[in-house]
Amino acid sequence: MSAKRKKLRSDLAWSTTDRIVVRGHDLVDELIGKVSLGDIAFLELKGRLPTRKESAVFNAISVTLVEHGMTPSAIAARLTYFGAPESLQAAVAAGLLGMGNRFGGSVEEAARTLQEAIEVSGPKASLRGLARQIVVTYKNMKQPIAGLGHPVHKPVDPRTAKLFAVADANGFSGKYVKLMQLISDEAGRSYGKKLPVNATGAIGAIASELEIPWQVCRGLAVMARAIGLVAHIQEELQEPLAGEIWNRVEAESSEHQRSS
Amino acid sequence: MSAKRKKLRSDLAWSTTDRIVVRGHDLVDELIGKVSLGDIAFLELKGRLPTRKESAVFNAISVTLVEHGMTPSAIAARLTYFGAPESLQAAVAAGLLGMGNRFGGSVEEAARTLQEAIEVSGPKASLRGLARQIVVTYKNMKQPIAGLGHPVHKPVDPRTAKLFAVADANGFSGKYVKLMQLISDEAGRSYGKKLPVNATGAIGAIASELEIPWQVCRGLAVMARAIGLVAHIQEELQEPLAGEIWNRVEAESSEHQRSS
Amino acid sequence: MSAKRKKLRSDLAWSTTDRIVVRGHDLVDELIGKVSLGDIAFLELKGRLPTRKESAVFNAISVTLVEHGMTPSAIAARLTYFGAPESLQAAVAAGLLGMGNRFGGSVEEAARTLQEAIEVSGPKASLRGLARQIVVTYKNMKQPIAGLGHPVHKPVDPRTAKLFAVADANGFSGKYVKLMQLISDEAGRSYGKKLPVNATGAIGAIASELEIPWQVCRGLAVMARAIGLVAHIQEELQEPLAGEIWNRVEAESSEHQRSS
Amino acid sequence: MSAKRKKLRSDLAWSTTDRIVVRGHDLVDELIGKVSLGDIAFLELKGRLPTRKESAVFNAISVTLVEHGMTPSAIAARLTYFGAPESLQAAVAAGLLGMGNRFGGSVEEAARTLQEAIEVSGPKASLRGLARQIVVTYKNMKQPIAGLGHPVHKPVDPRTAKLFAVADANGFSGKYVKLMQLISDEAGRSYGKKLPVNATGAIGAIASELEIPWQVCRGLAVMARAIGLVAHIQEELQEPLAGEIWNRVEAESSEHQRSS
Repeated sequence: MSAKRKKLRSDLAWSTTDRIVVRGHDLVDELIGKVSLGDIAFLELKGRLPTRKESAVFNAISVTLVEHGMTPSAIAARLTYFGAPESLQAAVAAGLLGMGNRFGGSVEEAARTLQEAIEVSGPKASLRGLARQIVVTYKNMKQPIAGLGHPVHKPVDPRTAKLFAVADANGFSGKYVKLMQLISDEAGRSYGKKLPVNATGAIGAIASELEIPWQVCRGLAVMARAIGLVAHIQEELQEPLAGEIWNRVEAESSEHQRSS
Repeated sequence: MSAKRKKLRSDLAWSTTDRIVVRGHDLVDELIGKVSLGDIAFLELKGRLPTRKESAVFNAISVTLVEHGMTPSAIAARLTYFGAPESLQAAVAAGLLGMGNRFGGSVEEAARTLQEAIEVSGPKASLRGLARQIVVTYKNMKQPIAGLGHPVHKPVDPRTAKLFAVADANGFSGKYVKLMQLISDEAGRSYGKKLPVNATGAIGAIASELEIPWQVCRGLAVMARAIGLVAHIQEELQEPLAGEIWNRVEAESSEHQRSS
Repeated sequence: MSAKRKKLRSDLAWSTTDRIVVRGHDLVDELIGKVSLGDIAFLELKGRLPTRKESAVFNAISVTLVEHGMTPSAIAARLTYFGAPESLQAAVAAGLLGMGNRFGGSVEEAARTLQEAIEVSGPKASLRGLARQIVVTYKNMKQPIAGLGHPVHKPVDPRTAKLFAVADANGFSGKYVKLMQLISDEAGRSYGKKLPVNATGAIGAIASELEIPWQVCRGLAVMARAIGLVAHIQEELQEPLAGEIWNRVEAESSEHQRSS
Repeated sequence: MSAKRKKLRSDLAWSTTDRIVVRGHDLVDELIGKVSLGDIAFLELKGRLPTRKESAVFNAISVTLVEHGMTPSAIAARLTYFGAPESLQAAVAAGLLGMGNRFGGSVEEAARTLQEAIEVSGPKASLRGLARQIVVTYKNMKQPIAGLGHPVHKPVDPRTAKLFAVADANGFSGKYVKLMQLISDEAGRSYGKKLPVNATGAIGAIASELEIPWQVCRGLAVMARAIGLVAHIQEELQEPLAGEIWNRVEAESSEHQRSS
């Protein structure tokens, strides 16, 4: 082993024979029976328990991400469970693996856009100026702006107004939320069509208000969706779909070879 | 495609352009901003929102499972993130993959033991008789009984008393909890040493009181740990360990070859 | 850290600035350009390069496991790639996660049955007696015998005769292969219907002839299928199916809710 | 379901009760016992069996990627197996999840750089001019060029010369290989230090000669490493490391909390 060893160090939890401490809180005396799952998630990410207002906002964005119905993730989880019923954890993991750039990634990308813009520009920058600049940049790159528009929820994503209202009612409608809304505004003008903030844009903005680093924002979707995927496996036990999906897809996709 | 098609059917969620419905509840009007993450997890698994007492108990068992420090799962997640920083979801998934028979599986196994015993024996069976029978069966198979004893938390797991107290205070200390405690009692007598109920035994029993099928109980650990693993990735960003672990393990494990 | 440290030790590979050694062979001088992928797989598992006959047999069983068309694994991989196009490795991993008890597990289970029977019974045991005993045991447990019968390939699995012929031609038709065939024979008699050895039964038997431990036999399917899954992702790039499968499954499975 | 359905179609494999066809070849009559694992991998990716020369080159690059010793992937796979011994497939999958941008991704990135440059510039472009342009572009972006330099193998990666020699001996030292070498040349001049082509750069170039699309090149590493990871799990069964790694990392990383 090398002489220069970096010390390994983690502050998340430690335990002795009679004690378990999570983020500085005694698990048994201070957390179990006193703190809800959502607030523990906040504790894990922020290193401290949330205020009542932070809890309201953090739980609101987490709740939004739990269940989206029969997504590619949910179908993949069910197909995996079909082949590996011995390991439910693998089915949930398979489902989470699809929460990448196209899905969970959009929360991350929206948060990154907002956090990088505000970090670079400094406290005195005009938010409208920043919004304009972001729209121009993406338009020049011919790339969509994360957090705007939605293929199904048109003209507006019904979750956005609610999420922004919860944030506002709890004092978390600051510069990130405003910048996100201004980006939508400027993009609409520039493209000549409504491009309202969608749920992932709202969540990216609100997570930024909670000072959650953008690199972790995709993780909000991942942790929430893990819950939803367990529910999908439970339903698969009672109302199995995987075998039928397999049969249909296999038959149709090889039909042209079989008949030739 | 075959003529006999099974209809695909899921009751978890559906959406239209302006509405999202999760388990029969309008996401925007009834859930976001009103219900906490833990209660949504209950809704997902049980098909209805919890009572206040159910919520207390369900959140207590979930909270217990979020963070266990630097487990094999957490280390695997960090090592995965080191190689694939583009996909946080894959790092979390890699961590969850280790929540198998040895870890999350013990919650499932404890719940299975309790649920199968009570289902087979009927409502009039003596719980002590059942406990005795279970201990004899496992002793004959020379296999450990799930949910008893702990390698670190000796003589007692500090989480157990707390979890059972929360269950009792909320009216969920029924036959499953009693049977788990009687199994511990009988096992202690039979093996001539203390074999107290550990946290996974308590959680398996309490989940059974909540009528969560044993097949899904491992999922409680999986969904909770997903939260903890996101926190580990966040810490890895700030205080990276993976590279150092790699260097040390590689150097030491190949030392005998290098020097030969 | 504990005073008693177990030394970490691995014999698979090591490297210096100018050398890489895999299983005792210099990668550059002895392996690249000289040994095929299948033979390296043999080297990895057995610690030595195969003879020409071992190579023929090992490649035959590996080749059989590469591609099975549009399986649940392949569909899960494609759905995962749809959501996470940034990480092809995650799509392949998601596909492999479904190679569990129902698929890859049957190779393992067949090998386990054969290896445990022969290990316990000793060299002088009658193979027919062992076969009879195995059939009786599984019949009493009301469980299917791994490696017999096939839902699609009836009355016989076309791969079996070929695999056994390759094994025989290369001197690997020993007691494991014979025992597998006798089990089929006895099971057919006992159940009063043809129960021919299927491909996974043949592979389990031949892998046992190669002295590959049953605990790893599922891995033969896993490593071979990884190749097939990369090909599925490549095809998905050119002829995408995932989006269409998602649309159809989501629409049909929520139809009853939408219309109510 | 929508009226406009896209037809699902796959050309990889299909089967009937007595026949299995992979990429147009009868599995039993044409492949098992006749074609090696590496050549089947070529068939899967290219849609036809390789010539003898293609086989030599394709096997050479695949073989290079199988085993790299105790990498983060291998450690993650072993830690996962520790927690989930019931599903070897999950341990291999966990290991593959780390074959992301930092590892397998470099093969992809090198191939992308080469393929995009040559596609855009047309057949008459000067390769040296292209190389110069690529070096300038990456230097301006302050990003490393994929496929150059190596943290361990200095001054030169011993695999590179061998891989290029195999490619050359078989007629696959064309414009992609030349461009890769010229990029190394120009980068060395521009940065004033040796930046030789490493193994992933050589593999990216040779895979391009074989006309494997860059989007799939990471998959070459993934499929090869699946083999290596099965071998790591086999070794973990005989010489377990995971528990010891866990103990050490947990103890050291929480030491500062325990003692405070």
